[in-house]
Amino acid sequence: MKATSSKAVEVNLDLAETLFGQLDRATRRGRGIVRDSYGAGEQAAHDIVRAAAEGIGLEISVDAIGNLTMMLPGKDRRAPRILIGSHLDSVPQGGNFDGAAGVVAGLCALAALRQSGFVPAYDIGVMAIRAEESSWFDVSYLGSAGAFGLLDPQCLSVRRSDNGRTLEETLLERGFDPTAIGQRRRLLEPDQIRAYLELHIEQGPRLMAEGIPAAVVTGIRGCKRFRNARCLGQYGHSGAQPRTLRQDAVAATVAFLHHMEGVWLRAEEQGADLLLTTGELYTDSAAHAPSKVAGETRFVLDLRSVSEDVMETVAAEARRAAEQFGTQYRVSFDLGAATDSPPAMMDARLRGCLLGLLNEPLEMPSGAGHDAAVFAELGIPSAMIFVRNDHGSHNPEEAMALEDFGVGTRALIGLLQRFPL
Amino acid sequence: MKATSSKAVEVNLDLAETLFGQLDRATRRGRGIVRDSYGAGEQAAHDIVRAAAEGIGLEISVDAIGNLTMMLPGKDRRAPRILIGSHLDSVPQGGNFDGAAGVVAGLCALAALRQSGFVPAYDIGVMAIRAEESSWFDVSYLGSAGAFGLLDPQCLSVRRSDNGRTLEETLLERGFDPTAIGQRRRLLEPDQIRAYLELHIEQGPRLMAEGIPAAVVTGIRGCKRFRNARCLGQYGHSGAQPRTLRQDAVAATVAFLHHMEGVWLRAEEQGADLLLTTGELYTDSAAHAPSKVAGETRFVLDLRSVSEDVMETVAAEARRAAEQFGTQYRVSFDLGAATDSPPAMMDARLRGCLLGLLNEPLEMPSGAGHDAAVFAELGIPSAMIFVRNDHGSHNPEEAMALEDFGVGTRALIGLLQRFPL
Repeated sequence: MKATSSKAVEVNLDLAETLFGQLDRATRRGRGIVRDSYGAGEQAAHDIVRAAAEGIGLEISVDAIGNLTMMLPGKDRRAPRILIGSHLDSVPQGGNFDGAAGVVAGLCALAALRQSGFVPAYDIGVMAIRAEESSWFDVSYLGSAGAFGLLDPQCLSVRRSDNGRTLEETLLERGFDPTAIGQRRRLLEPDQIRAYLELHIEQGPRLMAEGIPAAVVTGIRGCKRFRNARCLGQYGHSGAQPRTLRQDAVAATVAFLHHMEGVWLRAEEQGADLLLTTGELYTDSAAHAPSKVAGETRFVLDLRSVSEDVMETVAAEARRAAEQFGTQYRVSFDLGAATDSPPAMMDARLRGCLLGLLNEPLEMPSGAGHDAAVFAELGIPSAMIFVRNDHGSHNPEEAMALEDFGVGTRALIGLLQRFPL
Repeated sequence: MKATSSKAVEVNLDLAETLFGQLDRATRRGRGIVRDSYGAGEQAAHDIVRAAAEGIGLEISVDAIGNLTMMLPGKDRRAPRILIGSHLDSVPQGGNFDGAAGVVAGLCALAALRQSGFVPAYDIGVMAIRAEESSWFDVSYLGSAGAFGLLDPQCLSVRRSDNGRTLEETLLERGFDPTAIGQRRRLLEPDQIRAYLELHIEQGPRLMAEGIPAAVVTGIRGCKRFRNARCLGQYGHSGAQPRTLRQDAVAATVAFLHHMEGVWLRAEEQGADLLLTTGELYTDSAAHAPSKVAGETRFVLDLRSVSEDVMETVAAEARRAAEQFGTQYRVSFDLGAATDSPPAMMDARLRGCLLGLLNEPLEMPSGAGHDAAVFAELGIPSAMIFVRNDHGSHNPEEAMALEDFGVGTRALIGLLQRFPL
């Protein structure tokens, strides 16, 4: 069957403006937004979008752990459906758009399709996913991973960072069913999902810098992190120790990190996706002194890429270089174990289709994690649209222009109209 | 008049061994040596060397602030004299040789000269200088600077780090006269000192590394220190911020410090005396995170050289490079004000003479400060001999072999025999 893609569909930005306004008023606490995972703030957001979905005439369902799905029925109700998803929780003192923009975009898309008389070949649901942020419970993707039965049941005893209540207690208080997590029940079947689509504000500065309103996400970067790297040298007198007899941990660390920046530059020249960050670096405040050669540094080396191969190669080079500079500077590096989170690639056909729907086609990786990673890792064809946003995310200054949101939402609608691809 | 330099003079290392043993037994507290400035430990050391000097037959005098001078009378008692000096205090839990070696060497030298029947042309005194270490009172060179009336009278209210008593109270308790400092009285006249000679253990590792027992000091390095250098960037998401849009304070600081190491290497190639140390370097523990691009670093840049010109040139280059890397990395460096202590050059004729007295002639700068700097800055021809020492200084593991001490002391005796130069 063919979608009636010829009919013009216009997105209703008034609906978006109304919803963002309601969300802001209901969940702003002081300067920032507080939509606490499984708390009053997240629930207020769920109530707002649910009411809007009822107004549009969508079918409402809530799963055992609180994920809300708002469905536009298709011609074949039993065929695998399309899900447009995002989360409604926020970090403490966050902004109004991180997460919520994706749900609002989904509602605007379904409202526009319904308004235009478009009946999809199969169901299209907007899924307001619970608890994506790990700042309340120290677990990422509670709602999406929980819906697929992927959570370790032990997470039920994780306590909320602010009030100390366990996840289990919190779910029960909200009227949800922790046994779904405890028994690893699947509330969603991957093979019943044709595609997963997510619109999100860009959390980095690139679209602002390039002057482009929206982009297609190539993949969600994985992370390989040397969390506890150290360099051990020997303390000495800064005025009495000749350079060639020093075991200077700072000099060695500087040389190592400078080398790794060179590795990054060469990787970029070769077109590889890579980010390399040392966000923490310090000498030992109990032992260092202005007149001492430093005997120790600690630092973090954080590698990000959409390519597991690139991360492996760069991590291997880091280990090799640590040996080399250790010898050269008469110190010893211990990079320690690397923590790993794998990259999640977005679906090539969906990406291509979305690119064709943008006036200024641009692809970019996502550095931060998203629920889309959970779907993609299960083999569900997934795609993400980034919308330009100023000041980064996870802070009260998040700033997304409604026109830019319109550009992203129009691409989303265009993609929905093109199914089956 | 001419010294009778033809007569063989042999140094008595038994005397040295006896004195080092007495000092050790009297002032070791647990693992380390404690000769607290103007405290019981320093006084015990003064009592030991004074008794030894009396045994040798030297004339004893103690000035108003406790400096002890032990004089071998010369033929012309009114002519400017030679002083052999060093301090007898130690840092808390220090070693047995830092400071004391110089006083013991002076006594061994005068004992040997007297034993041989040598009568110098003019008086030669061994000066056991008070309170050179700044770890008890936070003032350097209390004894030598105080003897020349150079101390700021406000230092009388500085409190001892351990017992909280002021310098003034402490001097009075020991029977000394704080008004000498309060009135900036000169207890020594620079033009009455023909030369100042100081033997000291090397505090760095160079003589151990080169396998040479003693060396002549070219000068005492000055220090120009950027104590409160900072780099200010902008915090960002380590997975979402592309390299070219970052304001990464760590990356900029690494690039800057790596550049400065290159400056150091080039200065060394050109034969310049220079040490360059970043002993403290840290991101802000209240704001940094493994997943954040760092928005700030703080660090120290410590320059040492016997040449004021070299320090000026390198400091200017540091300021220029900070501008350059600030622009390149979109951050701003603020190196802050530099604290300055000028280098003190040792006298060329005395150095040349000492070099000629060593079987393995080697010259090297002193990185740490010594009382000799006070004498040299007043225009008094000064010279220093370094004796090989393992494990650095200011710790219980200081290790000087008696034979090496003998090599340095023989050079000192040789120099005394050659006056007038």
